[in-house]
Amino acid sequence: MDSLYQAIQHIRQEKPLIHHITNLVTMNDCANITLAIGGSPIMAMDPKEVGEVTARAQSLVINMGTLNELVLEAMLISGKVANTLNIPIILDPTGIGISTFRQRALSKILENIKVDIIKGNASEIKTLLGLSTVFKGVDALDTDTIESLSEITQQASKMLDTVVVCTGETDIISSSENVIHVKGGNPMLKNITGTGCMLGSLIGAHIAINSNKMEAAGLALKSMHIAGERAYTRIIKEKRGSGSYKVFLIDEIYNLSSGEYK
Amino acid sequence: MDSLYQAIQHIRQEKPLIHHITNLVTMNDCANITLAIGGSPIMAMDPKEVGEVTARAQSLVINMGTLNELVLEAMLISGKVANTLNIPIILDPTGIGISTFRQRALSKILENIKVDIIKGNASEIKTLLGLSTVFKGVDALDTDTIESLSEITQQASKMLDTVVVCTGETDIISSSENVIHVKGGNPMLKNITGTGCMLGSLIGAHIAINSNKMEAAGLALKSMHIAGERAYTRIIKEKRGSGSYKVFLIDEIYNLSSGEYK
Amino acid sequence: MDSLYQAIQHIRQEKPLIHHITNLVTMNDCANITLAIGGSPIMAMDPKEVGEVTARAQSLVINMGTLNELVLEAMLISGKVANTLNIPIILDPTGIGISTFRQRALSKILENIKVDIIKGNASEIKTLLGLSTVFKGVDALDTDTIESLSEITQQASKMLDTVVVCTGETDIISSSENVIHVKGGNPMLKNITGTGCMLGSLIGAHIAINSNKMEAAGLALKSMHIAGERAYTRIIKEKRGSGSYKVFLIDEIYNLSSGEYK
Repeated sequence: MDSLYQAIQHIRQEKPLIHHITNLVTMNDCANITLAIGGSPIMAMDPKEVGEVTARAQSLVINMGTLNELVLEAMLISGKVANTLNIPIILDPTGIGISTFRQRALSKILENIKVDIIKGNASEIKTLLGLSTVFKGVDALDTDTIESLSEITQQASKMLDTVVVCTGETDIISSSENVIHVKGGNPMLKNITGTGCMLGSLIGAHIAINSNKMEAAGLALKSMHIAGERAYTRIIKEKRGSGSYKVFLIDEIYNLSSGEYK
Repeated sequence: MDSLYQAIQHIRQEKPLIHHITNLVTMNDCANITLAIGGSPIMAMDPKEVGEVTARAQSLVINMGTLNELVLEAMLISGKVANTLNIPIILDPTGIGISTFRQRALSKILENIKVDIIKGNASEIKTLLGLSTVFKGVDALDTDTIESLSEITQQASKMLDTVVVCTGETDIISSSENVIHVKGGNPMLKNITGTGCMLGSLIGAHIAINSNKMEAAGLALKSMHIAGERAYTRIIKEKRGSGSYKVFLIDEIYNLSSGEYK
Repeated sequence: MDSLYQAIQHIRQEKPLIHHITNLVTMNDCANITLAIGGSPIMAMDPKEVGEVTARAQSLVINMGTLNELVLEAMLISGKVANTLNIPIILDPTGIGISTFRQRALSKILENIKVDIIKGNASEIKTLLGLSTVFKGVDALDTDTIESLSEITQQASKMLDTVVVCTGETDIISSSENVIHVKGGNPMLKNITGTGCMLGSLIGAHIAINSNKMEAAGLALKSMHIAGERAYTRIIKEKRGSGSYKVFLIDEIYNLSSGEYK
């Protein structure tokens, strides 16, 4: 595995174009974190142009946070283009348990598009599998053990033939064969909106220059963990709160350029 | 009345889900301030799913800032679900004087939905009453006395059978019987976009755990006033401007957890 | 030419209403920078109300960043109203090279609306002229000389009978007769999303109180350059990154009120 330092250098050299069809709540943060890690974001979402835009991109990030019919149509168009051109796709089934509309949309996406990485929290991954789960908006409430979550994540991975990232206290990355645990996500990350979406952008940036999906997901998580930890240290030191935490998180992704970490 | 400290502790224990159908300009800030006060935000706005989403929520915040036909339809659907399930509704008639479209939409909302709290500035509340007013975008320009504004606010409250919050130099909260004045809004709050919208989110969080509408509105205003004051002290001390003010405002809402205020 | 100090005082006295029909990624930043310079932003974008809104405004800013059919329709309606009422229009053809849809939309806008200032990067201005250019999302990749870019900018200005601003290492402002170079844009401005869009807002604020288009564009660029430089000094001093840079940029526009610069 490349060190994180090498990976980020690589992203900054290549400046890959990451096409996002994402939610309206956090798209500004997604664009800024993509720039901070070294990528080039584009957020086009009209069905009339998304195919052309995806064709120029090095990865496609799909996020269902504020889905509507038009956005779904755009996702299907871009997804097909990406599949044809072997452009990797990251899918974030945000709040998938919240409505029948989202679940039907997700089925449609999974029937029509081959996705490379799915990233969600425990509730979202369990909904993927059709398991019962307790939902509260876009947050998960279940308290499964890490063992059962690992199993569920791998089941989802096998069922959907894709790498699955299940975020939580310990993050889990699974292919059909392997399961990796990545520890270190700062709890403060839950106190701002969009850290999941931003993680999707980071995965999009890493996978654009690294065809090993497990590695790309792992390095993206590591980027977020280091930045999340450093941003937390900073808000404590400067007596700040969640507003500053978001700002510092992007700062620290931007500053991931020295060779001090592995 | 609960102390603000108790109210915020209560919100943080319950973590109520606040469904926003709001404008596209400030929805990220609304989501973050909802998290900062201790709630759980969800911003779904497609008519195909909003009913289901509202049914899971503890309050519904409707903001007309970037209204269109689809969003209006979503508001009507969610409003009816909220009424049926006794979920409190906060309505922010942002910039209602700016166009006939918004005024017609507002009439449609008020005819079809029983709203619990309406929050606006003097121009918006006066437009509600059909009084003439001078508009400039989403800001108010009139210079009525506090007495005349109190009367107007109470008139609106009686006419619409709802609690009305009229924001300004002194904030006014009125039911059909009582009028309360809340002083202390920092003038700097006008120099950033979305403080009105964020106040709507704070009311949504307070009303989710406190069925007394006057109290919920008062505590939300108090939250905003304290945070607005502290954020202002901070930008002066650190020689910052309006960009930092928004960040610090969310910080200070997040940090409203010690017992030092009443 | 008014000094920048006088111009900003003027904007803050008049508080002109700047109607934006802009992209969904950066509209919050555009609203906040408009407030920071002293204007009053409104972001209405539904065809049903934009005409009425534009009629109240002192300038109209059109940005094609996340265009769709409905937004295009809104732009055409507002543009015609603005032309009838002599309200100045700033057009930002964001990422115009990225899709046929955007190019057709741009043609439609230019056929139907008389625009006062077009602002874009080298790739966008060249696409305007039909020259070949290398696109990567919304960023330019070409490495033309300042001389050839000046010529291209003036050609575009003559062809479209409008002032053209071509942003880059050196910014170029051209009418059909004159070309001005404005140096001093901090390279850090490229590391956050929306600085181009925010520049559009600043031009909108300046042109609202200054009918000399070349001057208005020059003063807007100067505002951005000074703020961009100061924000950069601050992130270096405080060891911050791109997240803080955006916040400080708005701070420094807000703080452009002392008489120290010309």
